[in-house]
Amino acid sequence: MTQRNLFLLPGDGIGQETMAEVRKIIDYMNAEQGAGFTTDEGLVGGSAYDAHGVAITDADMEKALAADAVLFGAVGGPKWDAVPYEVRPEAGLLRLRKDLELFANLRPAICYPALAAASSLKPELVEGLDILIVRELTGGVYFGEPKTITDLGNGQKRAIDTQVYDTYEIERIASVAFELARTRKNTVCSMEKRNVMKSGVLWNQVVTETHKAKYPDVKLEHMLADAGGMQLVRAPKQFDVIVTDNLFGDMLSDVAAMLTGSLGMLPSASLGAPDAKTGKRKAMYEPVHGSAPDIAGQGIANPIAMIASFAMCLRYSFNMVKEADNLEKAIANVLDKGIRTGDIMAEGCTKVGTTEMGAAILAEF
Amino acid sequence: MTQRNLFLLPGDGIGQETMAEVRKIIDYMNAEQGAGFTTDEGLVGGSAYDAHGVAITDADMEKALAADAVLFGAVGGPKWDAVPYEVRPEAGLLRLRKDLELFANLRPAICYPALAAASSLKPELVEGLDILIVRELTGGVYFGEPKTITDLGNGQKRAIDTQVYDTYEIERIASVAFELARTRKNTVCSMEKRNVMKSGVLWNQVVTETHKAKYPDVKLEHMLADAGGMQLVRAPKQFDVIVTDNLFGDMLSDVAAMLTGSLGMLPSASLGAPDAKTGKRKAMYEPVHGSAPDIAGQGIANPIAMIASFAMCLRYSFNMVKEADNLEKAIANVLDKGIRTGDIMAEGCTKVGTTEMGAAILAEF
Ligand SMILES: CC(C)[C@H](C(=O)O)[C@@H](O)C(=O)O
Ligand SMILES: CC(C)[C@H](C(=O)O)[C@@H](O)C(=O)O
Repeated sequence: MTQRNLFLLPGDGIGQETMAEVRKIIDYMNAEQGAGFTTDEGLVGGSAYDAHGVAITDADMEKALAADAVLFGAVGGPKWDAVPYEVRPEAGLLRLRKDLELFANLRPAICYPALAAASSLKPELVEGLDILIVRELTGGVYFGEPKTITDLGNGQKRAIDTQVYDTYEIERIASVAFELARTRKNTVCSMEKRNVMKSGVLWNQVVTETHKAKYPDVKLEHMLADAGGMQLVRAPKQFDVIVTDNLFGDMLSDVAAMLTGSLGMLPSASLGAPDAKTGKRKAMYEPVHGSAPDIAGQGIANPIAMIASFAMCLRYSFNMVKEADNLEKAIANVLDKGIRTGDIMAEGCTKVGTTEMGAAILAEF
Repeated sequence: MTQRNLFLLPGDGIGQETMAEVRKIIDYMNAEQGAGFTTDEGLVGGSAYDAHGVAITDADMEKALAADAVLFGAVGGPKWDAVPYEVRPEAGLLRLRKDLELFANLRPAICYPALAAASSLKPELVEGLDILIVRELTGGVYFGEPKTITDLGNGQKRAIDTQVYDTYEIERIASVAFELARTRKNTVCSMEKRNVMKSGVLWNQVVTETHKAKYPDVKLEHMLADAGGMQLVRAPKQFDVIVTDNLFGDMLSDVAAMLTGSLGMLPSASLGAPDAKTGKRKAMYEPVHGSAPDIAGQGIANPIAMIASFAMCLRYSFNMVKEADNLEKAIANVLDKGIRTGDIMAEGCTKVGTTEMGAAILAEF
């Protein structure tokens, strides 16, 4: 029987509660469908810091590296605002991305029909919205050196961050975007600031060359990242796949997520390169939302983004396309029935907590 | 009589047409109000490149440095997409900002009541919106060194951009934000990515210290820049003054501008430090919109952002508060009367061109 090895990192805040609902789906798939998932669990973020003084231990990193896929909840919270920079909760997430070489971050911004009214945009602008943001995740200003704060004397300090991109880094993320576009509306919009940044100039060149050499059938457009932010707000449906760097991707994917009115619903996948021998990619799946410390532990968090992240895991790590489709359909059905957690509550709907929402989705699955 | 020395740089595309309408207002103020404006004019961007092979000449830079204020139109267009990086149109704008040391960029995002319906957001979320984004303009990744593309051999290139911030740069822009907040709703939100960038860590520290030392009466909040982008889209009216760095300011001010539905209407001011002797600040005023090459030369561009930029010039460079108020009121009146250029046209309104719009505002002034 196929062995499918998952490593769970629920992390902090609502990460615990929402991961619990995924665990039930895994158990169900093992019991009813013989899915053969094995799971192990570790600590990341503030919970790892509290237990071990680091944002993730080397032992847990080993397990993440060995797993077929990692499921990640969320990290951070005011409790750890004052811990040293090197061991802050986010450092665990960044180490996972870097050490697993998860260079391709896929962030779908989908507007669930049942939730279009929840968007701050006019419903006609977001109904049916389906954008895929492909964000470079292991390069740029997140990891470039030097990254320092120096005391200059005289009460002056100097902070430096460095944005670095090499040709191959841009080429491989562009290829992921073009490949995915072929499975969608066949259109890629590349965003950078070539009018100000040298990395934007190189980004633009390499995307253009990759397109010409390998994907001439895909429609390619270029947009300055600031104009891209504007266009996302003005007319988001003009986009299919957006490919952009680590920092612009951070900003733009958050704006896009908010447009959908479904922030608590959006999953993401972070993928590495296919292994030369096995063709398998390292992968981590996580909700776009954060740890929401204000509502943690109350049993009211929306588990949908975490469950939808598991659906992406089924699709991208295990090629379980039918199961992924079914799980996504189960989510849509539950929403259509008017079952809602507090964050997406609307008039005439039934308000439920985290476990009821998880159970409702499992019942439709 | 007071001498008031203006240097006009209409630039490319619709910059020419929109600046012409400001010139009429200047002539009117000289003739009817004895305002004593003298004007000189130069070339910037693509038009400077076509004439002189650079994005701005040293001679024009001298004039900009000597003037009491610079009025700037817009630069760029597809015609100059392939010119060398160092002399691309934007280089003229960036040199002006840097050599005049215009470190404080003020970008109001105001929703004119008559235009609330034009926003892509639900009207109740933007009606009465009045945000002031204070963007650092002479530091960060725009100007930090190294800023290079290097050939690594093997067909690989490496692009590097460097974000650099010193304590004094953050302190002075924070002070501008706090001072301005005192004239408004007394609230500042500072945005950075301290969870990823060292410059974000220093930014957060220095803003906090400046607040404590000099502006404890102002309400200060901190937000991660990605969350800030989200909140701008979700509930923009929560903000009063936002202070942020050069690159985040570029992105966030464009998103904020788009929210208002009034992109063609929004002005900006870029200010230097007050002169130690005279107290005067170097200053440049420019619309937030670009050169719009697609509609240039057709006489249909909206001149309101350029005229509103001149109103900011009256206010900040010449302390002509009454005149600035009147000019801004004239703009609002014309909109209330339903007079519209094509970009803001709505049912039941009267569509006019650039010169008619300029004339209508002058008639109300
Ligand atoms: C938590 C933080 C380090 C992270 C990032 O900036 O990448 C988050 O904002 C995200 O988008 O996943
Ligand atoms: C034209 C460009 C260099 C400029 C910038 O990036 O600052 C523009 O986008 C702006 O916001 O004024």
